[in-house]
Amino acid sequence: MAQQAVTPLSEDVSKWYNEIIYRADMAAPSPVRGCVIIKPYGYEVWEAIRNGLDRRFKATGHQNAYFPLFIPESYLRREAEHVEGFSPELAVVTIGGGKELEEPLVVRPTSETIIGEAFSLWIQSYRDLPLLINQWANVVRWELRTRPFLRTAEFLWQEGHTAHATHDEAQFETLQMLDIYADFAINEAAIPVIKGQKSENEKFAGALRTYTIEGMMRDGKALQSGTSHNLGQNFAKAFNIKYLSRENVEELCWTTSWGLSTRMVGAIVLAHGDDKGLRLPPMVAPIQVVLLPIYKTEEERAAVESAVSRIAAELKAAGIRIHVDNREETPGFKFNDWEMRGVPVRMEIGPKDVANNNAVLARRDIPGRDGKRFVSQDGIVNAVRDLLTEVQANLLADATAFRDSRIHDVSTYDEFKQVIEADGWARAWWAGEDVRGSVDEARVKEDTGASLRCFPLDQPGGSGKCFLTGKTADRVALFARAY
Amino acid sequence: MAQQAVTPLSEDVSKWYNEIIYRADMAAPSPVRGCVIIKPYGYEVWEAIRNGLDRRFKATGHQNAYFPLFIPESYLRREAEHVEGFSPELAVVTIGGGKELEEPLVVRPTSETIIGEAFSLWIQSYRDLPLLINQWANVVRWELRTRPFLRTAEFLWQEGHTAHATHDEAQFETLQMLDIYADFAINEAAIPVIKGQKSENEKFAGALRTYTIEGMMRDGKALQSGTSHNLGQNFAKAFNIKYLSRENVEELCWTTSWGLSTRMVGAIVLAHGDDKGLRLPPMVAPIQVVLLPIYKTEEERAAVESAVSRIAAELKAAGIRIHVDNREETPGFKFNDWEMRGVPVRMEIGPKDVANNNAVLARRDIPGRDGKRFVSQDGIVNAVRDLLTEVQANLLADATAFRDSRIHDVSTYDEFKQVIEADGWARAWWAGEDVRGSVDEARVKEDTGASLRCFPLDQPGGSGKCFLTGKTADRVALFARAY
Repeated sequence: MAQQAVTPLSEDVSKWYNEIIYRADMAAPSPVRGCVIIKPYGYEVWEAIRNGLDRRFKATGHQNAYFPLFIPESYLRREAEHVEGFSPELAVVTIGGGKELEEPLVVRPTSETIIGEAFSLWIQSYRDLPLLINQWANVVRWELRTRPFLRTAEFLWQEGHTAHATHDEAQFETLQMLDIYADFAINEAAIPVIKGQKSENEKFAGALRTYTIEGMMRDGKALQSGTSHNLGQNFAKAFNIKYLSRENVEELCWTTSWGLSTRMVGAIVLAHGDDKGLRLPPMVAPIQVVLLPIYKTEEERAAVESAVSRIAAELKAAGIRIHVDNREETPGFKFNDWEMRGVPVRMEIGPKDVANNNAVLARRDIPGRDGKRFVSQDGIVNAVRDLLTEVQANLLADATAFRDSRIHDVSTYDEFKQVIEADGWARAWWAGEDVRGSVDEARVKEDTGASLRCFPLDQPGGSGKCFLTGKTADRVALFARAY
Repeated sequence: MAQQAVTPLSEDVSKWYNEIIYRADMAAPSPVRGCVIIKPYGYEVWEAIRNGLDRRFKATGHQNAYFPLFIPESYLRREAEHVEGFSPELAVVTIGGGKELEEPLVVRPTSETIIGEAFSLWIQSYRDLPLLINQWANVVRWELRTRPFLRTAEFLWQEGHTAHATHDEAQFETLQMLDIYADFAINEAAIPVIKGQKSENEKFAGALRTYTIEGMMRDGKALQSGTSHNLGQNFAKAFNIKYLSRENVEELCWTTSWGLSTRMVGAIVLAHGDDKGLRLPPMVAPIQVVLLPIYKTEEERAAVESAVSRIAAELKAAGIRIHVDNREETPGFKFNDWEMRGVPVRMEIGPKDVANNNAVLARRDIPGRDGKRFVSQDGIVNAVRDLLTEVQANLLADATAFRDSRIHDVSTYDEFKQVIEADGWARAWWAGEDVRGSVDEARVKEDTGASLRCFPLDQPGGSGKCFLTGKTADRVALFARAY
């Protein structure tokens, strides 16, 4: 079995990404334009994301449901901005059961419209509020330029949809779900995302306000990793979502929606990778510990394999996701392979370890000798658990240090350009035009390739001079090149 | 809030089913032809099914993956029987991103073809076998007559797809997965399904052999609740799925597929319901115990609610799915409501119970006084757990007794007709024509409405006289009217 090194990330992130996704067996190309096959090693990362979020959604009172894949075309037209935003990206079913359909059916690009229609029927009175629904589903957006996980014509996601009696309750929900996304990203995906509000130009088609978590990838680019929208009364008006108040007055609801997709798998790859391949945070890694039996003679083999099986069983019983690599390859081949696939901890057991009742633990995040330690086979479960916790924390610390080294406060457009050119993020006072189609944002994009990622929720306060317009600004914005 | 009784099941099962699905809030109508919205109370049953199966799939070495929703139309044509079977039911995307597509894309009705294509690329040598993949996904079949859960244009399911080196390994897998379905159906859904093999006429389009689990519904009809197919080398030939053997010879693989869908939610409803509504087996019930605080005065209320909260917290901590009903409705209203929704155990706590450190447990499966018991609040978690176990076992025993009372051995066509007419299943020696389009099966169907559900795996052995053809038969078949 030949073993080729991947293109080093430090050389070409884009090439590295495309190679590693397939080499690590996270995805495979598919014969369908713009779609990939998510293979088990990628799907298990998605399952970890799914479990981490689903638990949080349920703990905050949300319930899962499932709405039809197909949406009557006329529904999308009811909210003017929404249809404008999604029309160019639609896949349309025109034939069903051998016959041309009277009304074409759109394959959902997102479900605000069909869920809005349902909510209008389900909600009668204030007693039915808040209505807190989430759906795990596939959606389709006919993208021209696609990349595995980051942008594909079909992707998997969850989309939350809620209805509330007041603006403030909807706003609370919008920010609560943003917090949940950030909490997951930071504490499980080990990505120190920044929470912020999108500009009018970048907000969701049909929203009052859009919030985002933005993660920094290893090339310094930003990746929007989850969004939460306060939809105001836009969809409530379009779909007639009303309730009778306590005072028996008919009122329009306030709605929200929020989504996070398989894009997060790509974010995890791009936020932590290094020249040798993936580095998966233990909490989302399909395999947390790979066990390698190391021996030369058949006699050694029996003793080593017996120790490995016993330890494997102990770790498994403790809920640790393990894999025993019994392939007939050299230890060197296996080291490289599991390094490339980003398994957080490698355990080696050889004849000497058996004799000494030891095992070697090598961590993926710290290369070479520094990352190795001998541990006793007694109490090995705790040693492994502690090490996984350390690796998890270290990946977050590492990504945070990387992020902080690349975010720069700038006050002039020249400084701004330098930061962006050096693959950094520029934080600056901003008083540019804040409308859809903003000429100021368009200018910055054209000049530098950077877009306004968000107005961070964490603001310095006070005011300052806008680096572009020179006007007095009351908030800072984060700009970066983005995926 | 008005409360209407559902049509009694004993009066009209079909009407009862359509009413209870919506009244119990398991589903809601959707604006899309043939599709329903699965509401949280129905979706949580599906989640229980999903968890129960997923655990079993993983324990037997299967891994989840995800394949594209869209399949190039040409793929379906590669396996002749397959395309014939599915062509009339296809939904077809002809427009993407505003443009007519060069090759139309079919919305998957099942994924043998696109997965077959992938397997042909992934499998090189015997070392890659067996390949054991499962996918949780939505599929679309353009059905003309639809019913919530039982038959809808879009439904959710899992589809397993595996490739093996030999016929025997594929056959072992096919039967192993059938066993897993049966184990789940019997031990979690409390449906005493019968395992059997489909006739040539009823087998999957493209399979060598199809196996099924058949459940008896409360109207005596059969519901095919899961199927497992030995696909032989049909798809391997059509998609060129080959491997190099240990002896370095190129060989065709043997493949299997197996699926179970949201239809199982309908099976659970129809296998256990009674005149008052649903009866959900505890293992799949979204709410296992509903707690009703009962009081008249504000003073009583405080004491009762405090006891209820404490017990609710204890049960929840023990992993029991509970709901506290604090609505401002009469106890009578609530009893009827939760009875209709099939919650296995109702707990009532009133002022006297608080004084006596007691609670009342009422089980859904045994109505009236006989199903009630007083328990001490001390050790209530164990009392509840035991009762849930009893309810689970009793629902299975009840369904089994019902099933056994309705299955009759027959030896003449007259007896056969009587059994079917009385909403039973007929078990009989069968030597009718066993081909697709069997005239003998067609005749029985036309005469009686019954179809050949399966040749049960559990056979009496020996031989007997076929009730229809008079020929000597070496196996018995089960016939019934079916959903």
